Amino acid sequence: MHVEQRQQTHAKFKSAGISHALLANEQSVRWLTGYAPPMQLGTNLFSGGPALVWYEDGHFTLVVLDGMAGYAAGFEAQPDCTLVTYPGYTIQQPIAGADRLSDALHQVLPPSGVKRIAVEQNALPLRIVHELRQALGTALDIAAIDGWLEPLRMVKSAEEIAKLRANFALTDIGHAAARTATQVGQREIDVWTAIHSAIQQSAGQRVPLGNDCVVGYRENNIGGWPLDLEIRTGDSLIVDLSTILHGYWSDSCATYYASDPTAAQIKRHKMLEEALDFAISLVKPGAVAREIDKQVRNFVGDRGYAVYPHHTGHGVGVTGHEAPRIVPYCEDVLAEGMVIMLEPGTYEPGVGGARLEDAVLVTADGAEILTKHDKRLP
Amino acid sequence: MHVEQRQQTHAKFKSAGISHALLANEQSVRWLTGYAPPMQLGTNLFSGGPALVWYEDGHFTLVVLDGMAGYAAGFEAQPDCTLVTYPGYTIQQPIAGADRLSDALHQVLPPSGVKRIAVEQNALPLRIVHELRQALGTALDIAAIDGWLEPLRMVKSAEEIAKLRANFALTDIGHAAARTATQVGQREIDVWTAIHSAIQQSAGQRVPLGNDCVVGYRENNIGGWPLDLEIRTGDSLIVDLSTILHGYWSDSCATYYASDPTAAQIKRHKMLEEALDFAISLVKPGAVAREIDKQVRNFVGDRGYAVYPHHTGHGVGVTGHEAPRIVPYCEDVLAEGMVIMLEPGTYEPGVGGARLEDAVLVTADGAEILTKHDKRLP
Repeated sequence: MHVEQRQQTHAKFKSAGISHALLANEQSVRWLTGYAPPMQLGTNLFSGGPALVWYEDGHFTLVVLDGMAGYAAGFEAQPDCTLVTYPGYTIQQPIAGADRLSDALHQVLPPSGVKRIAVEQNALPLRIVHELRQALGTALDIAAIDGWLEPLRMVKSAEEIAKLRANFALTDIGHAAARTATQVGQREIDVWTAIHSAIQQSAGQRVPLGNDCVVGYRENNIGGWPLDLEIRTGDSLIVDLSTILHGYWSDSCATYYASDPTAAQIKRHKMLEEALDFAISLVKPGAVAREIDKQVRNFVGDRGYAVYPHHTGHGVGVTGHEAPRIVPYCEDVLAEGMVIMLEPGTYEPGVGGARLEDAVLVTADGAEILTKHDKRLP
Repeated sequence: MHVEQRQQTHAKFKSAGISHALLANEQSVRWLTGYAPPMQLGTNLFSGGPALVWYEDGHFTLVVLDGMAGYAAGFEAQPDCTLVTYPGYTIQQPIAGADRLSDALHQVLPPSGVKRIAVEQNALPLRIVHELRQALGTALDIAAIDGWLEPLRMVKSAEEIAKLRANFALTDIGHAAARTATQVGQREIDVWTAIHSAIQQSAGQRVPLGNDCVVGYRENNIGGWPLDLEIRTGDSLIVDLSTILHGYWSDSCATYYASDPTAAQIKRHKMLEEALDFAISLVKPGAVAREIDKQVRNFVGDRGYAVYPHHTGHGVGVTGHEAPRIVPYCEDVLAEGMVIMLEPGTYEPGVGGARLEDAVLVTADGAEILTKHDKRLP
């Protein structure tokens, strides 16, 4: 599981002369191993630090809290990736997560003699650095490799695409519930709970849910959490959903209407349907991210609408927002196996707005749409 | 807001000779400032590191991502606590959270000349340590103060008790929904979505929800996430709920029955009602945590039931599980203003179990029960 990811990483490290590394970034750890602990309640209190992956000449070791190992959806020990766990909460002795994590790390560190290791310094706690120096010597040379894995994450493996598809199927279910629940007199939060219930009942388990559920009369009606705001006759509602299952994210957006849409709403919605179709038509291997961004913005602006202030799209994977980013500065070139979101919108602050979003898998000669939710006018 | 917390911290630092400190532990930051960003989807992708609090001779500065400042439920700048934000995601330039966080930190660091600072090294990233040394000199003495604020967090301020009460009111609503939803043919996840919907609809916003929803025939029927498991005639269902609102946690547990409880279930349930009453009767200033633990365990064991393998209780606040811990080793002495959970249970793996849990506020001469959920037999 996630063998390709480790092979790519090994190749990159090898060509850079890195023989020892310690990964601490949550997304790096997930992408390398499949380890996906629950996240809905924030950081685990007893872990004492981040989950770590120790790399040594092509072998990877995941170091995590024992109670969490059971939640390691998809993590399986492999010849090239083993597991070391440490105890978390017990009633027998005081909680000391950082000490236990350090003890576990010492089990996997090699004898002193290593001169140089690479680390993700934006996520690696100082405490762990002290442990490294204690085990490997105070003269240890520590190099930073933050962000190194991000470009590798762009093209998805078959295994990752399967995880993403499972998530897109859940957001499709959420959108069907949203379409039904968007009624005059309901509030944003009521629509949201209908969506979340439908998704979790379908999945048979808890599923984290993002992103936006905003009625048109909000001053910032582009995005935001659902609140105690009533949907009235004539209102539009933007519903933008991400789920996280197996450690992978989906994304998707549609715009719903509580009553018959007005002529202006219909016109705007149809324009965005065309803009989204146009955006998808631009996706193929070799297309440049910023060019797609520019063309879709022009499409919306040329039709007399306010151009959305956000990205035209972005990748999804172990995060809901990653490279390639379909934004003005991004020179990433699309390649087969990338999964990207496309999401043109137009907004009139405090009045109304609309956004439509699909996910596409870049294929050998174009794009396969992964989101199947109904984004049409009622 | 949270002024008492900062005053206590200042006094502790002053008496320890600490004039400069950098706090990076999520709970420390929340407790010191009230800063409570959304957590349901994990770590913010664009932050580049943890929220930080810089302490300098009695003044505190919160350093956080700008987009999150709007979610800083309860955070208000005060004479002793100011805010510095840094940009997160934009479409104009590549994402570089760690660089932006570092830039923001440099705005608040004093000129070089500081010889020694105290940090929470279990949470402080190496990258930030480099920034400290760059600003303050490579000879800087960095001392660890992990865990220093935890004892201070035990006694709650009036402001914290108000936040906790808001959360207990939400779990009460969740339990009422659970009691109604526990029906033969429903699944754990169905009960869970009914609970979560009721809570969020009442709050008018998204509210993270823990902890357990487990049918009696699970092999581990003490706790766990709700799954696709059907509730059958004769089954018990343990429902243990925490909400997180305003950055504070609640907790609470009850046991429900899908059909008329059996004689054995009734006997067990009544024993636990008595055990919980007994536990609450032991709460008063001066009581020692481990003594309460011992007495409640004996109460259950003396009645011929398997003694629960977990704690008898624990504190709640900016976490769902904190000091004082009502466990065998804990010598903490209860004091007025502490808020603790008490949760006797008994379990027969794969067959059934029950747990009842209340929150109590330690008062001048006893305890006030903060949880109002109906835990009685149907």
